[in-house]
Amino acid sequence: MKRKIVLTGDRPTGPLHLGHYVGSLVNRIALQETHEQFVMIADVQALTDNFETPEKVRASVTEVALDYLAVGIDPTKSTIFIQSMIPEIAELTIFYLNLVTVARLHRNPTVKEEIKLRGFEETIPAGFFMYPVNQAADITFLNTDLVPVGNDQLPMIEQTVEIVRKFNRLYGDVLTEPQALVPPALTGRLPGLDGKAKMAKSAGNAIFLKDEADELTKKVMSMFTDPNHLRVEDPGQVEDNAVFMYLDIFGRDKAAVEEMKEHYRRGGLGDVKIKRYLNDELQALLTPIRDRRKQFAQDPAAVMHLIREGTAKTRERAIATMARVRQAMKIDYF
Amino acid sequence: MKRKIVLTGDRPTGPLHLGHYVGSLVNRIALQETHEQFVMIADVQALTDNFETPEKVRASVTEVALDYLAVGIDPTKSTIFIQSMIPEIAELTIFYLNLVTVARLHRNPTVKEEIKLRGFEETIPAGFFMYPVNQAADITFLNTDLVPVGNDQLPMIEQTVEIVRKFNRLYGDVLTEPQALVPPALTGRLPGLDGKAKMAKSAGNAIFLKDEADELTKKVMSMFTDPNHLRVEDPGQVEDNAVFMYLDIFGRDKAAVEEMKEHYRRGGLGDVKIKRYLNDELQALLTPIRDRRKQFAQDPAAVMHLIREGTAKTRERAIATMARVRQAMKIDYF
Repeated sequence: MKRKIVLTGDRPTGPLHLGHYVGSLVNRIALQETHEQFVMIADVQALTDNFETPEKVRASVTEVALDYLAVGIDPTKSTIFIQSMIPEIAELTIFYLNLVTVARLHRNPTVKEEIKLRGFEETIPAGFFMYPVNQAADITFLNTDLVPVGNDQLPMIEQTVEIVRKFNRLYGDVLTEPQALVPPALTGRLPGLDGKAKMAKSAGNAIFLKDEADELTKKVMSMFTDPNHLRVEDPGQVEDNAVFMYLDIFGRDKAAVEEMKEHYRRGGLGDVKIKRYLNDELQALLTPIRDRRKQFAQDPAAVMHLIREGTAKTRERAIATMARVRQAMKIDYF
Repeated sequence: MKRKIVLTGDRPTGPLHLGHYVGSLVNRIALQETHEQFVMIADVQALTDNFETPEKVRASVTEVALDYLAVGIDPTKSTIFIQSMIPEIAELTIFYLNLVTVARLHRNPTVKEEIKLRGFEETIPAGFFMYPVNQAADITFLNTDLVPVGNDQLPMIEQTVEIVRKFNRLYGDVLTEPQALVPPALTGRLPGLDGKAKMAKSAGNAIFLKDEADELTKKVMSMFTDPNHLRVEDPGQVEDNAVFMYLDIFGRDKAAVEEMKEHYRRGGLGDVKIKRYLNDELQALLTPIRDRRKQFAQDPAAVMHLIREGTAKTRERAIATMARVRQAMKIDYF
């Protein structure tokens, strides 16, 4: 049976962190065994709100690629490609823009939220405003069946489905309707070191996959716990305590974690102890990743070669889709 | 000395008419002798408000090409190309969209006017909304120096200049700043057969370059004159009289036209007489064009071959510009 096509990816705006690992990378390592997986380094999308610092985007492409290889995204099983090297995505975007009204773009909840987040409002760049349409092109040029997304990204898939239906109704049955693949609850959003906001590079509360061992230790030891847990003998709160939130995800011995929670609640378990425990767990997880990353980083040309091959393979699909789109739209002149 | 680069073109939404001839084609026939002229068949732009009828756009590409060749746009002097066959235009558009705010697009006077004209308002397709940015890509990928436009199109050039300046400031001095080339007053807008609105296919008041001789005669004989000029002996009005407006442009013997105006004003000159005179003038102009058009139409493959060659030549320029843009934006990965 033909494997279903999955498209995933990241905006290259910095190295990937533990939030990415939990939220999507783990999922991808599993998906590559059962699906035909494409992993897009979305530099065009990153440029929509980083167009003034293209050097940051450029540097991050390599960082992200190294993170992929380090965590075990395997180029023989997954196809890694760079978005801007597929011109057909731009062509499709231009044609899809005809199928979406400006009013509809204004109503997109994800865009609305991000406009607020970035304080864009009236000065929102047109490129950012219409990136849902660009995303529809990303998804459809590969005839993607499934897109792993969080609940907050569901409106983007809905927008794509609308475009696919309108295109197929107008021009003939060419595009594949994608479905959202919402990952299991556990692999949800990881809070930052402060235990509040989600982990994000811009929030300065992130553990990066490439962090050195001592830096990781320093970050873990600085994590927020229960602000009222002042003396070791005081009872402490486990809920909204970043260290325990992490232990729920990364603690391999679930019974030991439950025991520590009990102990912390009744008092007598110090923050330093639980942090050291978490640090051990995270070091165990991240040391092999960090080591693999360093190995790959020794030969940047080889890494770029892998991406180049992935991009070439992806481009073939893009050219094939574009030929069918051109024929359907009657712009296949010669 | 290197010739300056001029970009002109038409949206393929039907065969060209006498309004196009006066407004731009005559100008292009002159420009190809002194400039390096590119003539774009703007099918992508035509699709922004004809996306539901791509077959109309497709058919019109051939019609427009035949009209070009018929009036004397010479493929050895001008380069004719099809917009959608240059994917780099789409790529540039996507990057330029980052440099323009949604608010700025809303303020574009030409877009504002056309939104009103087409009754789009809230339902304006995003593709139509952002076509000024697409136009900036058309102009800049060729390093265009000059764009012949009417006064109403000046805001589009201003928008392009803004984008060029912002791009060059952010990424380095890559793009050429274009200038508008406003044609002489005489070659302005031609009124329709009704003497009121400008000549337009959609207004049903047009004389097409491909009209047969008898059809042309029928149209001229149906033209609006002075509605109060009921009997031959009555004095007639020359102003706002479509036949005289046309004679001012197409009458080769200016003295004879002035004499007819005098005669018409004092009475005694019938509408049929002035229409027959105009018909003779237009037949003299359009017969050789119609004949050449028929000759070219006998071999559509040869016509398509000419466009294909023009498009290939144009594509080379596009690829070169895109390489420089990629380098400047630091997305020249491999």
